[in-house]
Amino acid sequence: MSELRKDPVVGRWVIIAPERGRRPSDYVVLDSEQGQGFCPLCPENEKMTPPEIFAFREEGSPPDGPGWHIRVVPNKFPALKEAGETAYRSDGVYESMNGVGAHEIVIETPEHGQAFSDLPLETIKRILFVFKMRMEELRKDSRFRYVVLFKNRGREAGASLRHSHSQIIALPIVPKRVSEEITGGKRYFSRHGRCVFCDVIRQEAGRKVRVVEENSDFIAIAPFAARFPFETWIFPGKHASDYGTITQTQYRTLAEILSAVLKRLNMALQNPPYNLVFHTAPLTEGSLPHFHWHIEIIPKVTRIAGFEWGTGFYINPMPPERCAEYLREIRLP
Amino acid sequence: MSELRKDPVVGRWVIIAPERGRRPSDYVVLDSEQGQGFCPLCPENEKMTPPEIFAFREEGSPPDGPGWHIRVVPNKFPALKEAGETAYRSDGVYESMNGVGAHEIVIETPEHGQAFSDLPLETIKRILFVFKMRMEELRKDSRFRYVVLFKNRGREAGASLRHSHSQIIALPIVPKRVSEEITGGKRYFSRHGRCVFCDVIRQEAGRKVRVVEENSDFIAIAPFAARFPFETWIFPGKHASDYGTITQTQYRTLAEILSAVLKRLNMALQNPPYNLVFHTAPLTEGSLPHFHWHIEIIPKVTRIAGFEWGTGFYINPMPPERCAEYLREIRLP
Repeated sequence: MSELRKDPVVGRWVIIAPERGRRPSDYVVLDSEQGQGFCPLCPENEKMTPPEIFAFREEGSPPDGPGWHIRVVPNKFPALKEAGETAYRSDGVYESMNGVGAHEIVIETPEHGQAFSDLPLETIKRILFVFKMRMEELRKDSRFRYVVLFKNRGREAGASLRHSHSQIIALPIVPKRVSEEITGGKRYFSRHGRCVFCDVIRQEAGRKVRVVEENSDFIAIAPFAARFPFETWIFPGKHASDYGTITQTQYRTLAEILSAVLKRLNMALQNPPYNLVFHTAPLTEGSLPHFHWHIEIIPKVTRIAGFEWGTGFYINPMPPERCAEYLREIRLP
Repeated sequence: MSELRKDPVVGRWVIIAPERGRRPSDYVVLDSEQGQGFCPLCPENEKMTPPEIFAFREEGSPPDGPGWHIRVVPNKFPALKEAGETAYRSDGVYESMNGVGAHEIVIETPEHGQAFSDLPLETIKRILFVFKMRMEELRKDSRFRYVVLFKNRGREAGASLRHSHSQIIALPIVPKRVSEEITGGKRYFSRHGRCVFCDVIRQEAGRKVRVVEENSDFIAIAPFAARFPFETWIFPGKHASDYGTITQTQYRTLAEILSAVLKRLNMALQNPPYNLVFHTAPLTEGSLPHFHWHIEIIPKVTRIAGFEWGTGFYINPMPPERCAEYLREIRLP
């Protein structure tokens, strides 16, 4: 059973998930190879994953067999387990709870070789819809306070499988980085009466220097205090704190901007490994005036050294203005 | 000129240091090679570094020539520049200041091939002494609020040179992770009237399960809520918030525990890349009852994936108790 533990000084929760230690790839000095042979996410290999939670399929095709367009399955090596109570414990200075949560894999396409950014817009729309659907389902479980939607592409970004997929983790706590954003947003709101993210978007949309891509519903920017070269954030232009409130038309416009931004990054950096993470409001808080949901995309082009780890203070060799300009100038095919 | 920029939501400062972008190694997709040929840190190559700030040398040997035992030089590719004023600026929602600071390299030994952990104890003592000496010197500059002492070993940990060295960065701000520790320590102190780190040390020393190594002055533990496998922290047993207060006898005992811990990690993980960072009080705050200086060592044996980046919430596949037991059981030669 995995365990959630809280650092007694800074209050950061970690998952101690010994089951995962059994995967050698999780736990050996870094190498750069990614499995090329057998793929457990491909059609015909459905029995290699735990039974599916959900799928869009060809009419009449049975579960856990071929014929699917998108498939959601439990992670075979979950960081958290679905069953059980959270059971908060304390021991002297320490606090912990059971590693209760959900860990799911979204297999985004049956086609093994296709990169997320090259998927047809309708397929990306479907993935975005499935994210929202799974989030709403997990919201019904009162043990869960947060759902993380994320995607790792490439070995260097932590992906252990090449087949295009993303992950969903439901947690009984709100992760530190998100609660910092909420706290910061609340502080700004109480001082100015406005959402800080809305103010950032307004300022960026007016100046254009850090805008990478825009459409009727979304804006992609290179953030002012970017930690990494080519770090890119995507915001809905209109205030919304919860990804669960995404509208029908926004699935399409979000798919468009996501695909365009990733295509630009792929062309600029020759298909870099990257991480993509949704930041959304905690499940139980719903609509917050001081938080604004968004997506953070971080290409892995620099190594994080000791200075950054030790201090939370990043050195970024590329001004975000230059990244944005470079990305904007790329002509999409 | 580099610039310090503050994230308007969470208040995290970053260094935007475009000069560093010129080093291709900082900015190209990750590879695993480390320069094997010419070494700018070796004796006879002293002219390849900027003029030395300090050195212990053979009697009569001139600066910037051979004959040194340890050498401190400015970083040739500094993230921050020594000259100028901090000059705080704001622009709408954003705040920034000039990238003023210091960035120094401590060349720990003239011997190219020798790993830090294999250096004689007297050499490690000398390095620890030079850290403290440089810190005291930088403290005199009223523009600086914090000094980070750190060491990256191995390409995967961000080291671009193999020759054993560490780095010193002086900053006009207190890094986020340190101020979080200070805030957490203050909160605990106001509730319990004790240093939270002292309580952690007392609990760990009593139970022994997470203790890796101990001597008369220091204790090394696998932290309860470790983010990474084999993460190890070293604390002075007696309360002290500022590395600058280290005593004559502690140089020796710290060298001993540091060398022993690193030897254990090297044997357990076959000479892993690692980061080592000192956490000490801000320069201007001196002696704090609620903060306790320490060293954090993080071997790079897992990849950090999107989930961790996006959320600040780590999944650690190895219980720290198991790591500590494993490390304790290694017999040192």
